[in-house]
Amino acid sequence: MKEYRIAVVGMGAVGREMVATLEKSSLPVSELLPLVRRNEGEPISFRGRTYKTVKVNKGVFKGVDIALFSAGEQASKELAPMAIEEGAVVIDNSNAFRMDPEIPLVVPEVNPLDAKKHKGLIANPNCSTIQMVVALKPLHDLYKIKRIVVSTYQAVSGTGYKAIDELNEQVSAYIAQEEIKNSVYPHQIAFNALPHIDVFLDNGYSKEEMKMHHETRKIIGDESIQVSATAVRIPVVRCHSEAVNIETEKPMPSVEEIKKILAEAPGVTVIDDVANDAYPLAADCQYKYGVFVGRIRKDYSIPNGLNMWVVADNLLKGAALNAVQIAELLAEKNWVSKDTGC
Amino acid sequence: MKEYRIAVVGMGAVGREMVATLEKSSLPVSELLPLVRRNEGEPISFRGRTYKTVKVNKGVFKGVDIALFSAGEQASKELAPMAIEEGAVVIDNSNAFRMDPEIPLVVPEVNPLDAKKHKGLIANPNCSTIQMVVALKPLHDLYKIKRIVVSTYQAVSGTGYKAIDELNEQVSAYIAQEEIKNSVYPHQIAFNALPHIDVFLDNGYSKEEMKMHHETRKIIGDESIQVSATAVRIPVVRCHSEAVNIETEKPMPSVEEIKKILAEAPGVTVIDDVANDAYPLAADCQYKYGVFVGRIRKDYSIPNGLNMWVVADNLLKGAALNAVQIAELLAEKNWVSKDTGC
Repeated sequence: MKEYRIAVVGMGAVGREMVATLEKSSLPVSELLPLVRRNEGEPISFRGRTYKTVKVNKGVFKGVDIALFSAGEQASKELAPMAIEEGAVVIDNSNAFRMDPEIPLVVPEVNPLDAKKHKGLIANPNCSTIQMVVALKPLHDLYKIKRIVVSTYQAVSGTGYKAIDELNEQVSAYIAQEEIKNSVYPHQIAFNALPHIDVFLDNGYSKEEMKMHHETRKIIGDESIQVSATAVRIPVVRCHSEAVNIETEKPMPSVEEIKKILAEAPGVTVIDDVANDAYPLAADCQYKYGVFVGRIRKDYSIPNGLNMWVVADNLLKGAALNAVQIAELLAEKNWVSKDTGC
Repeated sequence: MKEYRIAVVGMGAVGREMVATLEKSSLPVSELLPLVRRNEGEPISFRGRTYKTVKVNKGVFKGVDIALFSAGEQASKELAPMAIEEGAVVIDNSNAFRMDPEIPLVVPEVNPLDAKKHKGLIANPNCSTIQMVVALKPLHDLYKIKRIVVSTYQAVSGTGYKAIDELNEQVSAYIAQEEIKNSVYPHQIAFNALPHIDVFLDNGYSKEEMKMHHETRKIIGDESIQVSATAVRIPVVRCHSEAVNIETEKPMPSVEEIKKILAEAPGVTVIDDVANDAYPLAADCQYKYGVFVGRIRKDYSIPNGLNMWVVADNLLKGAALNAVQIAELLAEKNWVSKDTGC
């Protein structure tokens, strides 16, 4: 069985989850190469061995089969071409290449075949988009989704360790009745809800909101789907929650039937028993794999409407886990070598 | 000028805000009567005098002009008929009478004339509904709203003092790395998002979500408006935020024009300058009067769509302030005596 030499670029919140997820994965790894731009020499444990972080330099990707990037958009733009040039297949978690029509944007449960078309790089989608499309794809296949109105309740860990620290510090200051300071976010995040994720665009939407529109269409492969999103950061450490409202072209069956369809869908776990206060919760879904769906109910305001509540660990299915699943898919299907476009 | 004898029934989170709001209001008050079901004798300061809480008993409402009720649905059902019988006009903050077709449900900026039709009782709407209809009524008048999809980000103070304490205790336990306990909510509220407010109904919606549908139609006076709501509790102490998506029958003008319309609307303050990170925030709107609207942007997913972010202090405009404004309206228009139905 082939073993893979895997590089992980960036040791932030997502990079470390990539290492932890790789550790648990079935992927045969001959060697892990934890790459950083600063703080080299830090020990990283992986499957009983200790690797030290190495500074990214020219030539470092030689002999690497797959490089998982999570060092920010700028680092991806600078280093991914070098990694590809040196022979690695890059799975990139940043926004740098997602909407490039030449580059596959992959959620393995949704569009695994797109991964085959890679020319050395596969983009890992935005966290909010991944969990939504995993939950919606089975319904789109059957009833064709026309429009999605989604409001997000996003965790601070998506911004990285600094944001987790800021939330903890603000909460501690609040309890101690001290002044609340902010530097990572433009406003206090503790005990607040910020309708502001990523930068704002000319149309009044944030980039995060527009990612949910563009990436959903690309991943599901249907440019007729319309997405109107409001992306909101709330004081939660891990797991994004989403209130998702959909309108389908074809009539949907009963809620019981929809629950069955979703329960059987890949990567989806249905938690929906409101009589017993059971629905997916950020606090419960932390560190769990997959996408959790509940509060499934018909939207009576239109003929073919449905509401649901979708929760997933933004650092796992929303980032590291999805990237590792792409690596597993490439290995399983023997798609690690570049598609030469035959 | 006539002076009014005002009773406030219930000294919970909303009852105390009613006293504080009355204190600042222009309403001429000859005497305040703070009524409770337990803990009688507690001193309540009001306009330089100290009143002691009095236990509600038969006859206590004699001589009272207006009774503001905020002691829960059961207390309202039991005591409001007695208060009316004894001659008071009741403004009731509970859910007990809101959907009774004989009882006006009033937001003074939206349907002030409905207050005139009272037969001794006016219902104060649900907190989430009030702030939404204040923001939407000016647009409905001009462009006719067909459908609203709304997701809420609701503060714990709506549940009362016990919930504020529970959030603070959970946050303190989290910081101290101690076990997080819950009793007010069915799950941990700190660092979490609970898609569960009030009880669940047979259609899968929570009662809170259906209130937003039914009350919006009644207040705006248009039974053709459709509302699909997802009501979510988040770890915020004061102020509900709402991601509101609307579809209108008539085309809407530019976002700049809509901002002008809203800025001129009664009770609405527009905070919308995303280039400078300005949008309404729960943490900023605490203790403020009115309804704050921002993130106004066209929803390109349908022909006549619009998104906005609406924030208000749930204990003030969402409860105590709206009730006091109804009292002021009754006094100003001389509608305190019962409508005899002429």
